[in-house]
Amino acid sequence: MAGIKPIDKEAMRSVKQRLDQLTKPKESLGALEDFAIKIAGITGEKRPVLKNKVIFTLAADHGVADEGVSLFPKEVTAQMVYNFLNEGAGVNVLANHTGARVVVVDMGVAVKITTEKKNFVDRKIAAGTRNMVKGPAMSREESVRAIQAGIEVFRSHHAVSKIDIVGLGEMGIGNTTAASAITACITGEKISDVTGRGTGIDDSQLKAKVDIIARSIDLNRPDRNDPLDILSKVGGFEIAGLVGIVLGAAEARVPVVVDGFITTSAALIAASLAPESKAYMFASHNSVERGHRIALKWLGLDPILDLKLRLGEGTGACLGISIIEAGVKILNEMATFDEAGVSKS
Amino acid sequence: MAGIKPIDKEAMRSVKQRLDQLTKPKESLGALEDFAIKIAGITGEKRPVLKNKVIFTLAADHGVADEGVSLFPKEVTAQMVYNFLNEGAGVNVLANHTGARVVVVDMGVAVKITTEKKNFVDRKIAAGTRNMVKGPAMSREESVRAIQAGIEVFRSHHAVSKIDIVGLGEMGIGNTTAASAITACITGEKISDVTGRGTGIDDSQLKAKVDIIARSIDLNRPDRNDPLDILSKVGGFEIAGLVGIVLGAAEARVPVVVDGFITTSAALIAASLAPESKAYMFASHNSVERGHRIALKWLGLDPILDLKLRLGEGTGACLGISIIEAGVKILNEMATFDEAGVSKS
Repeated sequence: MAGIKPIDKEAMRSVKQRLDQLTKPKESLGALEDFAIKIAGITGEKRPVLKNKVIFTLAADHGVADEGVSLFPKEVTAQMVYNFLNEGAGVNVLANHTGARVVVVDMGVAVKITTEKKNFVDRKIAAGTRNMVKGPAMSREESVRAIQAGIEVFRSHHAVSKIDIVGLGEMGIGNTTAASAITACITGEKISDVTGRGTGIDDSQLKAKVDIIARSIDLNRPDRNDPLDILSKVGGFEIAGLVGIVLGAAEARVPVVVDGFITTSAALIAASLAPESKAYMFASHNSVERGHRIALKWLGLDPILDLKLRLGEGTGACLGISIIEAGVKILNEMATFDEAGVSKS
Repeated sequence: MAGIKPIDKEAMRSVKQRLDQLTKPKESLGALEDFAIKIAGITGEKRPVLKNKVIFTLAADHGVADEGVSLFPKEVTAQMVYNFLNEGAGVNVLANHTGARVVVVDMGVAVKITTEKKNFVDRKIAAGTRNMVKGPAMSREESVRAIQAGIEVFRSHHAVSKIDIVGLGEMGIGNTTAASAITACITGEKISDVTGRGTGIDDSQLKAKVDIIARSIDLNRPDRNDPLDILSKVGGFEIAGLVGIVLGAAEARVPVVVDGFITTSAALIAASLAPESKAYMFASHNSVERGHRIALKWLGLDPILDLKLRLGEGTGACLGISIIEAGVKILNEMATFDEAGVSKS
């Protein structure tokens, strides 16, 4: 974590200077220009290119799913992993649309995933977390191993083919419950203010979900000043793995695009462990999950899109990456006033 | 205009039914699902595809530019037309990013455009409008001819190769002044509430711009109940041409994606002439120009993006089209619960 450097202000200044010479009124491409500047700061490159775009979709099961916190049965986690590998899920469609590829990582799915697919990585720590309403979801050692696995997954893929931008994705029935618990602990907001309907539960199920989170926090007493303690007691294997992806990417100066509420809860842990990692993050969208805006605000991130998404998987990250890439292309592909023979203001 | 039909509710129901069978919690892709449903309603197709995407960028000069309402000199209109044709402008970069092509139409540029480029269309009505602060910008006959030209440009391109979605774009030094005047007349809002900084003018220039618009409206007395009278007296050739593009596309059941403030002022005129055309429009983004939100609200359109853009040209429309296409791909490319063997809720 000591390896995460501050962003490169000099590269940002250079990019800003070029943007001001392009054939448009100054700053008239608004956020697109900001994205190009931020990418330059992160990568340290004055003419960055986003070519190799990877969505890391991490999957794991949650013991707390036994409490009926989701509309869907637990086996859907594994079923969706196969759907990802067969390219039938939302994240596959949107990654193809954006020109990104999806890497699927089993961090702790309850059953064994059997596949020959090259974009599958088995880093299973255990067959799902324990039920946090009855005790800690993970041991501290398990959560550290899961973070380490995430770092290694990032590093090994980056070593094979330099990654230009990372999108975070996840799958795990019950994981909005874990994300709400983490968000409550890190931000200090009320549990009911950071707990939403997940897959679409009704009012009484939502009330029960808030109650389960409250009981889990009461029982496990996560230390608010110890992000690893929070992660272990009320988190999940895929969330811990995502913390590792963020830290690995930030260390390698690769921009990280956060997706919805669950990946943002991983970003909260990463930012608590290594505050410098925040500068490497983009928020792709503002989800319907009510805790999401609170978590993004805590991170100081402004969401790029607001499309009422609540699917996760990395779907919003795909769209966010496409918009960020549009900004970088503006920097690289537009003509300057001089090149185009256009009069300046 | 009698040719614009209501949208196809049956196709929309069919698409909604399929979306609910895809491997995701119901409605969890939010606005993306709405876009797919709306495209089905517009096209009447249960499995629409957005392949042939065309940005029509219409250019013209404005007599009122002589009053110093823009930071840029008038010759920039023609210079930017050449920049579009040489693929150096913002709209070229973003159209390429989205897989759209740009058709550039001279509706009334002050100088002759000399080019061999196949994506250029000469429909010049006159060498710029007259200065509206001294009299009507166009005659009624000129504005009708400009609308007709827009309809014909759409129809001729659609006949050669069926267009699946249209983005509106424009270029014309001084045209936010015309757009503000139109917006004030159509919506009835105060001139100062619908007039912004355009290319980036300062406070005193903004005050002068508001004053010029007020004097133009006082002098020409456009009839608020006669959209053609408003368009003629305080509009512009590119705006009138865009009205024609909207009407031609709606008649052909082709979705129209509005860009920033100027194209939206054309949409206001189109919707006033043919209220059914509103159902064929998408608002790509919410621009920095202060009148834009007011105009979109009048049209009942919710902007897809909010990226602080204020360039025009069709830049926002390109990005909006990409997001709409993402929704249509979700409809066409995702697996159903049955196909993927995923348990339902």
